Amino acid sequence: MVVIMHQGAPKREIGQVLAALQHRGLEPRIISPEDRVVIGVVEEMDQASIPKLREALAGLKGVEEVEEFGSAWKLASRDFRSQRTVVRVGERTVGGPGVAVMAGPCAVESRDSIISLANVLAGAGASFLRGGAFKPRTSPYSFRGLGREGLEYLAQAGKESGLKVVTEVLRPGEVELVARYADILQIGARNMQNFALLEAAGDQGQPVLLKRGLMATVKEFLLSAEYILARGNPGVILCERGIRTFETATRNTLDLAAVPLLKQLSHLPVVVDPSHAAGKRELVPALALAAVAAGADGIMVEVHPDPDRALSDGRQSLTPEMFRALAKGLEPVAELSRGLLGEG
Amino acid sequence: MVVIMHQGAPKREIGQVLAALQHRGLEPRIISPEDRVVIGVVEEMDQASIPKLREALAGLKGVEEVEEFGSAWKLASRDFRSQRTVVRVGERTVGGPGVAVMAGPCAVESRDSIISLANVLAGAGASFLRGGAFKPRTSPYSFRGLGREGLEYLAQAGKESGLKVVTEVLRPGEVELVARYADILQIGARNMQNFALLEAAGDQGQPVLLKRGLMATVKEFLLSAEYILARGNPGVILCERGIRTFETATRNTLDLAAVPLLKQLSHLPVVVDPSHAAGKRELVPALALAAVAAGADGIMVEVHPDPDRALSDGRQSLTPEMFRALAKGLEPVAELSRGLLGEG
Amino acid sequence: MVVIMHQGAPKREIGQVLAALQHRGLEPRIISPEDRVVIGVVEEMDQASIPKLREALAGLKGVEEVEEFGSAWKLASRDFRSQRTVVRVGERTVGGPGVAVMAGPCAVESRDSIISLANVLAGAGASFLRGGAFKPRTSPYSFRGLGREGLEYLAQAGKESGLKVVTEVLRPGEVELVARYADILQIGARNMQNFALLEAAGDQGQPVLLKRGLMATVKEFLLSAEYILARGNPGVILCERGIRTFETATRNTLDLAAVPLLKQLSHLPVVVDPSHAAGKRELVPALALAAVAAGADGIMVEVHPDPDRALSDGRQSLTPEMFRALAKGLEPVAELSRGLLGEG
Amino acid sequence: MVVIMHQGAPKREIGQVLAALQHRGLEPRIISPEDRVVIGVVEEMDQASIPKLREALAGLKGVEEVEEFGSAWKLASRDFRSQRTVVRVGERTVGGPGVAVMAGPCAVESRDSIISLANVLAGAGASFLRGGAFKPRTSPYSFRGLGREGLEYLAQAGKESGLKVVTEVLRPGEVELVARYADILQIGARNMQNFALLEAAGDQGQPVLLKRGLMATVKEFLLSAEYILARGNPGVILCERGIRTFETATRNTLDLAAVPLLKQLSHLPVVVDPSHAAGKRELVPALALAAVAAGADGIMVEVHPDPDRALSDGRQSLTPEMFRALAKGLEPVAELSRGLLGEG
Repeated sequence: MVVIMHQGAPKREIGQVLAALQHRGLEPRIISPEDRVVIGVVEEMDQASIPKLREALAGLKGVEEVEEFGSAWKLASRDFRSQRTVVRVGERTVGGPGVAVMAGPCAVESRDSIISLANVLAGAGASFLRGGAFKPRTSPYSFRGLGREGLEYLAQAGKESGLKVVTEVLRPGEVELVARYADILQIGARNMQNFALLEAAGDQGQPVLLKRGLMATVKEFLLSAEYILARGNPGVILCERGIRTFETATRNTLDLAAVPLLKQLSHLPVVVDPSHAAGKRELVPALALAAVAAGADGIMVEVHPDPDRALSDGRQSLTPEMFRALAKGLEPVAELSRGLLGEG
Repeated sequence: MVVIMHQGAPKREIGQVLAALQHRGLEPRIISPEDRVVIGVVEEMDQASIPKLREALAGLKGVEEVEEFGSAWKLASRDFRSQRTVVRVGERTVGGPGVAVMAGPCAVESRDSIISLANVLAGAGASFLRGGAFKPRTSPYSFRGLGREGLEYLAQAGKESGLKVVTEVLRPGEVELVARYADILQIGARNMQNFALLEAAGDQGQPVLLKRGLMATVKEFLLSAEYILARGNPGVILCERGIRTFETATRNTLDLAAVPLLKQLSHLPVVVDPSHAAGKRELVPALALAAVAAGADGIMVEVHPDPDRALSDGRQSLTPEMFRALAKGLEPVAELSRGLLGEG
Repeated sequence: MVVIMHQGAPKREIGQVLAALQHRGLEPRIISPEDRVVIGVVEEMDQASIPKLREALAGLKGVEEVEEFGSAWKLASRDFRSQRTVVRVGERTVGGPGVAVMAGPCAVESRDSIISLANVLAGAGASFLRGGAFKPRTSPYSFRGLGREGLEYLAQAGKESGLKVVTEVLRPGEVELVARYADILQIGARNMQNFALLEAAGDQGQPVLLKRGLMATVKEFLLSAEYILARGNPGVILCERGIRTFETATRNTLDLAAVPLLKQLSHLPVVVDPSHAAGKRELVPALALAAVAAGADGIMVEVHPDPDRALSDGRQSLTPEMFRALAKGLEPVAELSRGLLGEG
Repeated sequence: MVVIMHQGAPKREIGQVLAALQHRGLEPRIISPEDRVVIGVVEEMDQASIPKLREALAGLKGVEEVEEFGSAWKLASRDFRSQRTVVRVGERTVGGPGVAVMAGPCAVESRDSIISLANVLAGAGASFLRGGAFKPRTSPYSFRGLGREGLEYLAQAGKESGLKVVTEVLRPGEVELVARYADILQIGARNMQNFALLEAAGDQGQPVLLKRGLMATVKEFLLSAEYILARGNPGVILCERGIRTFETATRNTLDLAAVPLLKQLSHLPVVVDPSHAAGKRELVPALALAAVAAGADGIMVEVHPDPDRALSDGRQSLTPEMFRALAKGLEPVAELSRGLLGEG
C-alpha cells in the first residue's frame, strides 16, 4: 500500500500518517525521492482489514491518495511523475536534448588501448565511454575482466577524453568501489532481478543504467527499476538490449517496441544497446538508427580498435570508422523523429 | 542440386544438360525466372553418386557452376543475383527509389467505406491499398471477410483512388480469383509454410507479398520465398511483421534486425508491418519510422476511419490523421538512413 | 452464436429455430456431429441486436441454451460433451482403454522396407503404422516423399501387418486421395492453421490426427480442432509434438503440461509425439514414458530399421530394438498413472 | 585451461605443474573437489602460446590430460566423473535409491503452521521440507518472507518432523546465515546467473539445489553448476522448474526433455519442480509422475494446508490430501521407469 501526500504536506501531517500505520503494527517507509512524500507499506496485509485502513487514512490531513499496487510499479510510472526524468552527469545528460551516445569496448584490455580509444571516440561523437572491468561470464573459466585495475584505466580514460564513464557492477559488495570510479553504474541483463544488487545501487548516489533481462517482460523491467527508485536513487536509465527468442540468426532479438512502450509507461529515459542484440557488427548501424527513430534517448554500442583481436565480443564490435559514420547520423534521425512523434 | 548455365547459353547446351540428368533417372526442371538459366534437380540423390555426376556436368558446354544446396535458399540469395530486385506494379515500385507505403483497413467492411478511405489514403501519402477480403481466423466462428464481394470493392477503390491493391489469398484454389482483382497477392503469416499455396502463388504472374510466420526463422522465411521463386515468379516482397515471444505487452515482437539481415542475405525487397506486431496504435508510428531507418523498402499499416468501430484489429489501426502525419516523415528518415547505411 | 437443442428435439422444433434465424438475414448451419443438434451462426452480428435475438430464440420450443463464443472453442469443450471421445479405427481405439502406440519411419522409402518394418512393429507392440508419403519440406529442393506410390505401400503394409495407417495430408485437394488409403489423416504442425485443409479434413469421414503448431497456444490448438469438428467430423485426435523455444539442445520443447491441460479443457483424446520434440533418439524413451505418466492416450514415435541411413529424421528415430523395449513399458506406467490421476 | 592429474599424483608432481604455470605469469588454482586433482587456469591466454604450453605441461610427471574448455562445463560433466553423484543429507539422499520427495509451502507463514504441515508431510511420504524464509519478489512492495525468523521456524519444523530442510538464499552475505539453519541451500531461477551468489554457495559445505533460470539453456545451467563445483562444493542438485515461452495457459513450460539430457551430460542428480511451471494445482500430479517417469531423481512440490489462503502461490499449491495420493505413486512409477531406461 502506498499513501501519497499532497505536495507540500507539512511534517506534522506526515507524522500522523506514519503513526496511524505503526499503530496497526505496520512498518511504513518514506519512499519518495522527489517532490512529494510517498509513504509505503511493504508488508502484505490481511485483505479483510484493508478497506477500514484506507478509510482511516483517507480521513487524515495531507493525504491525497491511498493506493494498493502489490505487483505494479509506482515511482517509475508516468502517473507518479508527468515530466520526463533527465539524468545529469556533469554537463552531459541522458533523456535531455540530444542523443546520448555511449561507446567503447566490451572489456577494458589495457591502459593504453582504452585511453587511446576514448580519445578517438570523443572525437567521433561519443559522450560516454562504456567498458567492462568486471565481466559477468557464463563460464567460471572465462576472462572476467581486469577488475579494480580496469576501473582505474577507465577513470583515467574518461578524464583524458572528457567522456563520462559507464561500467558494470556485479556484486552488492563492489558497488561502493565501482561508484568511486564510474559516472554511471551499469547493472547487466543477468542481474536485472538480483534484488540485493538493485538495492545496493539504489542506496548510493550515482545514476544507474539498468539493462533489461533476456527473459524479462517490460513490466518486470519497470519493477526492477522500482527497486532502485524505492531506495531513493532517482537516476535510473532503462536500457533495451534484446530478448531471447527462438531466432538464432541474431544473438538476441532487439525489441524496439519496448522503446515507445517504456516511454508511455514511465518517465525514465530509455537507451538501446543494439550490439548485444545483433551479435554481428554489420547489423548494428541499421539498428542504432532504428532505435533513435523509435524515440530512444541514447544508444550504447561496442567499438573496438581492432575487433577481430578483441578478447570478447569482437564479432559485434564496430570499428572506429563505422562508429564515426554512424554517430554523425544519429542526431539528424532523432530530430526528425522527435518532430513526428512529439516529445512523448 | 542446381546447375547454373552461363548467361546466354544456347538452347542446345541447355538441352544437353537436361539430357545428361534424365539419362541418370533424374527429373531436371528449369527453375530460373531471370537472366540466366538454372536447372534444378529436386530429387535427393545417392550421396555416393554425386561427385561423379558433378564431374560429368562440369564437363558440359555452357555450364558455369554446379551446386548442391539441400537445405538452403538459392534463387533468393544475393549470391545468385547481386542487383536488388525491384518489384514493379504499374508505375509504382517496391524496392525502388522511395518508401512504398501500404495502408488500409484490416478487413474490407463495405463498398462505400473502402472507397472513401482509399481516397483519403491516396491524398495522405499511400501508394498501395491493403485490406482483407478473405480473412484467416483462429476461430471458425469469427467474421471471415466479405470474400469475392470484398475483392470487387477493393478493385474499385484502387481504381478510383489510383492506389494499387494488396490483399490476402488463403487457398490455392482461390489464387486465380484473387489475382484477377489484386495487384499484389499477400500470403499471410499463418500460411508462410503452406507449401501448396506458395506454389500456386508462384505459378501466376502477380507479385507476392510474403509475410514472415510467427514462428519462422529468417532462414525458413527465405526458403518459403524460394518456393515462389522456384516456380518462376520473381516478384516476391518479404514482409517482417513480428514474431511470437514471451512478451505479452505487445501483440508480437517486431524483429527489426531481420531487415538488415534479409537485405544482406537476399536481393528481394523488404517491407515491415508494424501494426500487427505492436497491437496498439500508439506504438505504430515509432515502429514505422524505426523500420525505414533500419532500411526497409516500405511499410504496411492498418488505417481505419473510425478504429474503435472496426470489425477487427481496431485497437491497432491508425486514424487517417495519424497516418497522414506519419507518412510525411517516412521518406525523410529513409533518405537519411540510405545515406548512412549505403544502398546495401 | 450457437443454439443448443435439447437431446431428441424433433425436426419441427429444429426447423423453427432455423427459420427464426433466417428470418433475421442470418445463415444458420447445423454443426453438431453428435447426440444433440447444435445450430451455429457464423456471421458476426450487430452487438445491439443480440439480446433481443437471444430472447426470441430462448422462447422457442426445444432450445436448451443460446451461447455466444466469438473467440473460443465449443464443440471441442468438455462443457459440450462430458464423456471422453473414443476414436475408433476398426477394432483399434485412441482414447479408449490402453495406450495407442503409433510407430513407423519419418518417410516411406520403399515397398519392401515399409512392409518389413510394419511386421516388426506389429510384433513389438504397435497398433498403428505412421509414415509419410507426402512430406512437408522447408526447402523446395528437399525430398518430398513418394506421394501416391507411398500411400499404396503404406496401405499394403497396414494390411499385411494388421496395423492401422496414419499418414499426413498436405493439401485440400489431396484429402480424398489420402483418405482412400489411410485409416487416420494426419495434419502436421505447419498446417495447424491451414484452415482450408482443416475444413477439407472435416468434410470427410476418417479420423484426423491434428498436430499442435510449433508456435501455437493450447487455445489456438483447440480452435483448430474446432474447425474440423464444426464440419461434422467428430473423430479428432490432438497431438502434442513440442513447441519452439529458445532452447536449442533439443529440436523443440515438448510441452507435457499440455496433456493434462487439454484433457481438462476438452473431451478429445491426446497423443504425444516425443520424436520430433527431442530430435535425438536417446531422449525419446524417457519422454514417451513421461507422456503416458502424464495421462496421454497414446504416443507416436519414429522407428527406422537403420536410422543412420534414413532419408530423413534418422537422428531421432528409434531402432526396432529400442522400440520393442519401450513399448513393453508404456501400458504398465499408463496403468499406474490412471490409478493415481483418475480417469480425468 | 585445465590440467588433470593422474589419480594419486603425489604433491611433488602437483607442485611442479603449479610452478610451471606460475613461471609463465599465470595464476593456477586447484579446483577439483574430488578424487583427483584438477588445476585450472582461469586467465585467457595468448592463443599463439597455448600449443607450446600444452606440450610443456604434457611432459611433466603426473599429468594425465591438458584441456581447454573456454565455454564449456568440465567438473559437472560425465566425462569428468563417470559415476553418478549421490548427494547425502544425513541419512537421506538425492540421486541415490528412491525418489527424493521435497514438499512444503511457498513461504513460511508462521511457526505453528510450518511445524504442523511438516508433520503431515512426513507422514505422507516427504523426506525434505521446502519453504521460503527469504522470498525473491518481482516487486519491491510484495511480501518478502519472514527472514531469519522463518529460518528458525523451518529448522524447528525439520527437527520435529524428521524432514531435512531446503530453503532459498538470495544474497551472498546471507549464505552463512541460511547454511546455519538449512540442510540444503536453494538458489532460485532468478539467481541462476548471480555469479557472486554461486561462488558464495560454492565456498560453504552444505549441498546446493540450483534451479534452472527461466531463460537458461541446458548448457548455461550446467555452467552455473560449474561455478559452485569449481569452488570445491561437490553437492550440487540440478532442478528443472520450467522455462519461459510464448504459452500463457501455464505459468511456465516444464521442459522434461532436460531430465534425460542433463543425466546424459552430467553426473549430478536432477530433480523437477512441477508446481512453478504448471501454476495450477490440478496439473501438478500429472507432471510429477511424468518427471519421475522421465528419470528424475526427485520432485519438489508446493503444498499448503489451505491453498486458497496462502500468502503466495496458493493457486499452484497441492492440498495435503492431493500430496499424499501423489507421493504414494511416485516410487512405483520411478521403479518401472528405471527398469526401462536403465540406470542412465
